[in-house]
Amino acid sequence: MAGTGVFADIFDGDAYKYYSDGEWKKSSSGKTVAIINPTTRKTQYKVQACTQEEVNKVMELAKTAQKSWAKTPLWKRAELLHKAAAILKEHKAPIAECLVKEIAKPAKDSVTEVVRSGDLVSYCAEEGVRILGEGKFLVSDSFPGNERTKYCLTSKVPLGVILAIPPFNYPVNLAVSKIAPALIAGNSLVLKPPTQGAVSCLHMVHCFHLAGFPNGLISCVTGKGSEIGDFLTMHPGVNCISFTGGDTGIAISKKAGMIPLQMELGGKDACIVLEDADLDLVASNIIKGGFSYSGQRCTAVKVVLVMESVADALVEKVKAKVAKLTVGAPEDDSDITPVVSESSANFIEGLVKDAKEKGATFCQEYKREGNLIWPLLLDNVRPDMRIAWEEPFGPVLPVIRINSIEEGIHHCNASNFGLQGCVFTKDVNKAILISDAMETGTVQINSAPARGPDHFPFQGLKDSGIGSQGVTNSINMMTKIKTTVINLPTPSYTMG
Amino acid sequence: MAGTGVFADIFDGDAYKYYSDGEWKKSSSGKTVAIINPTTRKTQYKVQACTQEEVNKVMELAKTAQKSWAKTPLWKRAELLHKAAAILKEHKAPIAECLVKEIAKPAKDSVTEVVRSGDLVSYCAEEGVRILGEGKFLVSDSFPGNERTKYCLTSKVPLGVILAIPPFNYPVNLAVSKIAPALIAGNSLVLKPPTQGAVSCLHMVHCFHLAGFPNGLISCVTGKGSEIGDFLTMHPGVNCISFTGGDTGIAISKKAGMIPLQMELGGKDACIVLEDADLDLVASNIIKGGFSYSGQRCTAVKVVLVMESVADALVEKVKAKVAKLTVGAPEDDSDITPVVSESSANFIEGLVKDAKEKGATFCQEYKREGNLIWPLLLDNVRPDMRIAWEEPFGPVLPVIRINSIEEGIHHCNASNFGLQGCVFTKDVNKAILISDAMETGTVQINSAPARGPDHFPFQGLKDSGIGSQGVTNSINMMTKIKTTVINLPTPSYTMG
Amino acid sequence: MAGTGVFADIFDGDAYKYYSDGEWKKSSSGKTVAIINPTTRKTQYKVQACTQEEVNKVMELAKTAQKSWAKTPLWKRAELLHKAAAILKEHKAPIAECLVKEIAKPAKDSVTEVVRSGDLVSYCAEEGVRILGEGKFLVSDSFPGNERTKYCLTSKVPLGVILAIPPFNYPVNLAVSKIAPALIAGNSLVLKPPTQGAVSCLHMVHCFHLAGFPNGLISCVTGKGSEIGDFLTMHPGVNCISFTGGDTGIAISKKAGMIPLQMELGGKDACIVLEDADLDLVASNIIKGGFSYSGQRCTAVKVVLVMESVADALVEKVKAKVAKLTVGAPEDDSDITPVVSESSANFIEGLVKDAKEKGATFCQEYKREGNLIWPLLLDNVRPDMRIAWEEPFGPVLPVIRINSIEEGIHHCNASNFGLQGCVFTKDVNKAILISDAMETGTVQINSAPARGPDHFPFQGLKDSGIGSQGVTNSINMMTKIKTTVINLPTPSYTMG
Amino acid sequence: MAGTGVFADIFDGDAYKYYSDGEWKKSSSGKTVAIINPTTRKTQYKVQACTQEEVNKVMELAKTAQKSWAKTPLWKRAELLHKAAAILKEHKAPIAECLVKEIAKPAKDSVTEVVRSGDLVSYCAEEGVRILGEGKFLVSDSFPGNERTKYCLTSKVPLGVILAIPPFNYPVNLAVSKIAPALIAGNSLVLKPPTQGAVSCLHMVHCFHLAGFPNGLISCVTGKGSEIGDFLTMHPGVNCISFTGGDTGIAISKKAGMIPLQMELGGKDACIVLEDADLDLVASNIIKGGFSYSGQRCTAVKVVLVMESVADALVEKVKAKVAKLTVGAPEDDSDITPVVSESSANFIEGLVKDAKEKGATFCQEYKREGNLIWPLLLDNVRPDMRIAWEEPFGPVLPVIRINSIEEGIHHCNASNFGLQGCVFTKDVNKAILISDAMETGTVQINSAPARGPDHFPFQGLKDSGIGSQGVTNSINMMTKIKTTVINLPTPSYTMG
Repeated sequence: MAGTGVFADIFDGDAYKYYSDGEWKKSSSGKTVAIINPTTRKTQYKVQACTQEEVNKVMELAKTAQKSWAKTPLWKRAELLHKAAAILKEHKAPIAECLVKEIAKPAKDSVTEVVRSGDLVSYCAEEGVRILGEGKFLVSDSFPGNERTKYCLTSKVPLGVILAIPPFNYPVNLAVSKIAPALIAGNSLVLKPPTQGAVSCLHMVHCFHLAGFPNGLISCVTGKGSEIGDFLTMHPGVNCISFTGGDTGIAISKKAGMIPLQMELGGKDACIVLEDADLDLVASNIIKGGFSYSGQRCTAVKVVLVMESVADALVEKVKAKVAKLTVGAPEDDSDITPVVSESSANFIEGLVKDAKEKGATFCQEYKREGNLIWPLLLDNVRPDMRIAWEEPFGPVLPVIRINSIEEGIHHCNASNFGLQGCVFTKDVNKAILISDAMETGTVQINSAPARGPDHFPFQGLKDSGIGSQGVTNSINMMTKIKTTVINLPTPSYTMG
Repeated sequence: MAGTGVFADIFDGDAYKYYSDGEWKKSSSGKTVAIINPTTRKTQYKVQACTQEEVNKVMELAKTAQKSWAKTPLWKRAELLHKAAAILKEHKAPIAECLVKEIAKPAKDSVTEVVRSGDLVSYCAEEGVRILGEGKFLVSDSFPGNERTKYCLTSKVPLGVILAIPPFNYPVNLAVSKIAPALIAGNSLVLKPPTQGAVSCLHMVHCFHLAGFPNGLISCVTGKGSEIGDFLTMHPGVNCISFTGGDTGIAISKKAGMIPLQMELGGKDACIVLEDADLDLVASNIIKGGFSYSGQRCTAVKVVLVMESVADALVEKVKAKVAKLTVGAPEDDSDITPVVSESSANFIEGLVKDAKEKGATFCQEYKREGNLIWPLLLDNVRPDMRIAWEEPFGPVLPVIRINSIEEGIHHCNASNFGLQGCVFTKDVNKAILISDAMETGTVQINSAPARGPDHFPFQGLKDSGIGSQGVTNSINMMTKIKTTVINLPTPSYTMG
Repeated sequence: MAGTGVFADIFDGDAYKYYSDGEWKKSSSGKTVAIINPTTRKTQYKVQACTQEEVNKVMELAKTAQKSWAKTPLWKRAELLHKAAAILKEHKAPIAECLVKEIAKPAKDSVTEVVRSGDLVSYCAEEGVRILGEGKFLVSDSFPGNERTKYCLTSKVPLGVILAIPPFNYPVNLAVSKIAPALIAGNSLVLKPPTQGAVSCLHMVHCFHLAGFPNGLISCVTGKGSEIGDFLTMHPGVNCISFTGGDTGIAISKKAGMIPLQMELGGKDACIVLEDADLDLVASNIIKGGFSYSGQRCTAVKVVLVMESVADALVEKVKAKVAKLTVGAPEDDSDITPVVSESSANFIEGLVKDAKEKGATFCQEYKREGNLIWPLLLDNVRPDMRIAWEEPFGPVLPVIRINSIEEGIHHCNASNFGLQGCVFTKDVNKAILISDAMETGTVQINSAPARGPDHFPFQGLKDSGIGSQGVTNSINMMTKIKTTVINLPTPSYTMG
Repeated sequence: MAGTGVFADIFDGDAYKYYSDGEWKKSSSGKTVAIINPTTRKTQYKVQACTQEEVNKVMELAKTAQKSWAKTPLWKRAELLHKAAAILKEHKAPIAECLVKEIAKPAKDSVTEVVRSGDLVSYCAEEGVRILGEGKFLVSDSFPGNERTKYCLTSKVPLGVILAIPPFNYPVNLAVSKIAPALIAGNSLVLKPPTQGAVSCLHMVHCFHLAGFPNGLISCVTGKGSEIGDFLTMHPGVNCISFTGGDTGIAISKKAGMIPLQMELGGKDACIVLEDADLDLVASNIIKGGFSYSGQRCTAVKVVLVMESVADALVEKVKAKVAKLTVGAPEDDSDITPVVSESSANFIEGLVKDAKEKGATFCQEYKREGNLIWPLLLDNVRPDMRIAWEEPFGPVLPVIRINSIEEGIHHCNASNFGLQGCVFTKDVNKAILISDAMETGTVQINSAPARGPDHFPFQGLKDSGIGSQGVTNSINMMTKIKTTVINLPTPSYTMG
């Protein structure tokens, strides 16, 4: 159970502690931040409200710890990560419990998140052993005018201190997808978890603690954004920010120093459906893609762009499947659970009302109880409705009927977002021509958008982010290049 | 004109000379080999019948020249290749003339072969500058138990002397596709041209001579296979054989020493046509793929496997197009020209007669004059006919009607060849599942098999060859790996 | 001659025009900016003072032009770049003339800069053809739990509009090192040249114009920083900034949006000299590294850290060589020429005076006439002097005597800069251990720091920059990743 | 204990069984082959004398098993290999016992061999997951004249059935270094162990059996070379031979079909010692490199080439260390143990006598008891002595005194072998210039030759082999390339 057993150290009976210098500590602020259970709408947990001084301390320790960690053999770094992965998977139950309580994620999905996170950590360890262990060896005589007198060795060296800021919806998985590449690459890591999801993160961090990483290498600070948010992102000790979340990311990028940024922000993933598509396949992908975790996924299907001629048929099929979705508490593994907060529910409701006023067709009755919103398909949505462009981050999905492929591509590309998109067609030529034309980080042909498998590159274009993720790209992103050039007194060509 | 102008040096008024030690020479054998014009069936040219001693000399020079060439800056090697490419393109007319006379290639295609060869040489030069100028830099601590005390630098070093044996059908292009990678990689090169095509090759080699490569680096010996064939391929001075041709390749591979082999032998490229295929697209690809240069291409479509339900329609379309093919002399740019030799024409006729006897449907009347065979489509071919499995290397194309996709894949995979294949379907899933199932070096989706563009990998599986070609792979294939390991007294991790 | 012949179009008799929409134009501002000749200290040239509206127009055109440029075959893009390179080299004389007049670069070096720039453009074209033409093909079953049902294709797509801001010291070379990678990668390019160097840049841009690039793809705006500086760098139409220069870069990075930044800022490259070093080699490298172009190079040797035991000997050798340096006008190919501006000369003088006051040993008498400063070696410099840490960007070089290797490394790493560094020693182990310990983007073993050859990676750490340059890395940096995932209905493994 | 416990299945009380179709079997020949313990010179074990029919059966099963194994997800293949690695390490004791008895390897080294083998299998599994999961995605418009209408996907597909033939000296390690890459790449594997070492191999194979690989995928046949040697290597069912051993490899390569060969044969690794070398470091590397496992290593130091001026000093240091080597039984962990066979001991003695006759200086008295030969350093060896060129494969090391670096390089390059070499010098320039000049697969700077770490490339040039090994290269070598080209009806450039 959360906060007990091996996790007893991280809990003081009232609030969860923060992690600094290899120890679990209470903040000197004497204050805590409450975490509201989205289902009960009552305080579920409390976490430390850390101070700026505590952040400074964490940064200083991170800097020192990094220097010796960067001199640790790659296989030893990997060994520790494998250990952490095993511990994480072993303790999936209490961590999943936190996910259920903090972010109302259905119970089974919560367990899956933890297990998948362990796999990611292990995969990342082995990937890093290879990426970090190999540079290039260049010679000078490729370039006109040069003899072979210069041998250039390129290395990937760690950036230093990585600040990781995951979002509420996958607090564990999107934290480890930053932590594991950072560590294998020889960086130290400061984690600022989302408020909703913080306790899950603290448990996860404890698994790394138990694995035996050096003190100070990993830290986790919790607290109020107003107090330590900008302070963290603008901290001179930070050498890289890896952020997943919403618009805040754009603001961060404009204030951060001259450091590499890995940002994955919002999306408005379009699902373009052609006339020859397999409509059953489309319908099940729309359900999976649009309503999993109540639509609170960056790569959720967020707008369906369907050719008029098959729109009626598709809408019917989706409606039938929506009718089968269970709605209720995450503990019961309901398909649709309460959205993360009341403000989120209110925002969703705003989009729904706007669509209502402007004449969208409601395929189901709109229904809400507290943070729980029943799944809703909106047909005949038009570009003048807010929901045609904005992210509800809830179980509400607009359908726009299109009369040509170009119309679909145009809507997709007119968005300020560019995360993913998908196109459903049997035709090999159309599939490729359309996916080439869609200006998003990824286009899925005949499947809903998805982040994984985790070794695939994952990136948002335009306002959806900067930098590419996925195991390999994240590791590369968390390194910089250093070159050593051996200058010889006379040309030398290796013979064999 | 061939043998005149800048090419006067390579011709003694009666016979073409061979190239050794940077000079054009007459063989001490006093003998020549006649080259028969496939159209006139008369002797067109004569080339030197080189002796084993002359081969020995060439090998010795090649070994010496290679050592200093391997110490030439990459950009200088490239500069010489660019020069050779320009000279080759400048003199496309006389070389194309030889192709017309020696191998009866249509005039325009002959010019194209030379121009495309120049492009290949230039592309290869630039590719090599990059491939050869970059190795890997590996560190020891990736592997369990090791500290970072060993820095390993990998280089690609030349193999030494490359023996290049191109076939008659693209004597210039398939020669430079071996010469250019060999040279940029720092090797020396001994060319043994095909008898038919030898004079085209000698002209081409002269372009390299004019570019100013060091003496002995490139040689070209002509002569009788019985005298210098095995002598060359089993010569201890040879460090690599790059061969394109027929069954001889298998024999060579069984006698060659412990050296890398790059072999591209025969093919029986299947064209699988599904029910949903665009039949006009298929028909034009069958014409282009099956009848270009009278079917004398390794990647020609050599058997059509069409679903019964669309077979009639497809056969009609192809028949209509066959009817429009012009038949005659290469000088007139006829589509169909005489096949390379009488023995080849006789072999083709044997296959046709066998099919006739076993009941194949002749879509056109069989017609032959000398080496000139009229284009012929054979419908309702069955697996018991030789032409279902053997390569005609002529303008004769069998159609086998199939009742399932599996039947098509099975026929393709039952062949001892595995060069290329193609599948025509609009369906993205079928296209990929079928191409994955076809056991050939390349599968073309919705186009006829083809060797190019020249930077794509190109390889035959099973009896179709060993090793991969294409510019990049050929360069890599003509190098070997050498590593230098710097052992440090204490672990050292680069910091930045 | 500058502004005449083929360059007549870019000059209106009084001022140089700016380049927009494929045409040379006068600004609607009616104003010009004067460019002072560092040698004469009089106005040499005038350029347009462009307006914000003109910048807006240029951005708009750049956006449109980029979309169709991105659909141009790679080899065609390369062909245009090769053409521009040839034109540039053909017109090296007038462009070099501008460099002499605008930035007082010695005449021969000015010609070299233009020629080397042409080579870079060509190399970049061929490199891009390869980098852009190759992505990865990934399958899903590498990651635990997945079957092979997903085929992922990764592409490198252009970023969009690149803003290039080169510095005064290599205005042509550091402009093309941004332009060529931007263009081959499918981007459009807006160039903001430095005031000093602007006219050289305008001539260079005209060579690209003459090569025939599409209108709007390349633009060059000149003007006052106060009017269009921030306006450009914060412009929403900019998708990437490639900047080389000084501290301004840090300011830009803090205001720029969520876009990739390639910054190469200042440096304080240390030269560590061990006891076993070849002192003649060191001395000539210090002269070349410290005094070329009067020390106005980012990778100039900016501090010598020499072991006490060999310091006297080294200083003597350097002094002897300094005595031979010629001082005077760039037209006369003097080794030492006037620094770029009076304010720069004043800044250098400030550092010299500070060192004087604090007791540095002057190996030569300090001498200055206008912007011309005689070469000066300062021995016995100590860490409390400004010149131990600050960049003079002039012909003034401090020597710090050290008593241990650690002291040298410590001084190098205590700098806020981290561009390059060098170490002179014969010992293989020390060479590597020290270069690993020096926290700079590049360490040269036994040679002065240097940017080239241009295909080597080049990068500054800490305040010296972000991102890596060099032909290959610049091209990669000016692209982003897009993935297409083909989802199959059943697992498919390719067979062969 | 060997043949008991989990290994009881592989032993019938008298002889060890062979492994076919997932079962341990007795040969229908009813015959066995005796394995002589090098220490006792008595029969230690018996293994099956398999028949050609049994080989045929194994080949047939291997072909079938491979087809479905090639369709197994990469992570599942890796999972089985990790399992096998764990089982192998768990049972290190009985396997090491076999090594001690069969090949007289010192007890501790025997354990190390097994453990290192487990590490290799795991490393290989993870490496293969990455190598096999990634191909290239190429587009057509890189090559002149092409639009982007062709998308080429390159895959690495398994070769089919791999025949693995390891040598006696590392029967377990050099078997798994072939088995693991073969399997992860989707091949099936037929192992023909060396007679001496066969029982160790059978135990090792049982660990793979216990891990649960599919029946028929792995086989292990034992028997007489005269009966099944050529039969195996010339078997038409074999798609690749990976051989480590002696001259037999050259013979195999001349008879094998058109299949990829990976051969690592003999070596005569030179150790060049310069005047500035750290002689203590050299001496300990000579001891380790020349006398480990009694010199029975392909990468043993096999000739010392020392500059005359330091030769006396070096020889003294080595002599002192030789005096400390323990000589005796492998069970006692003696440094020097009996060589593998009487014929081997006789061969070594022949080389020693030849050197004696021709005047070499014996630093120790020559002593032999049975197969046990005392360590011997031969000084003043000259090129006319056989031991200057031939491999003793025993604890006998020749020292040749040289008067110039060139003399050392010349001796190294005059060898018909080209496996590894090493050079000892402190000078960075000499180290690199000499290693570039040595024509061997690897040159070690300041350390004895060595095969590992296992992820480094490892290859022999000239008569020392063909192909490169090491984990990565072996995996690549055991695949072939297949390409799929998607042909589009119109050009398509991906936008983002």
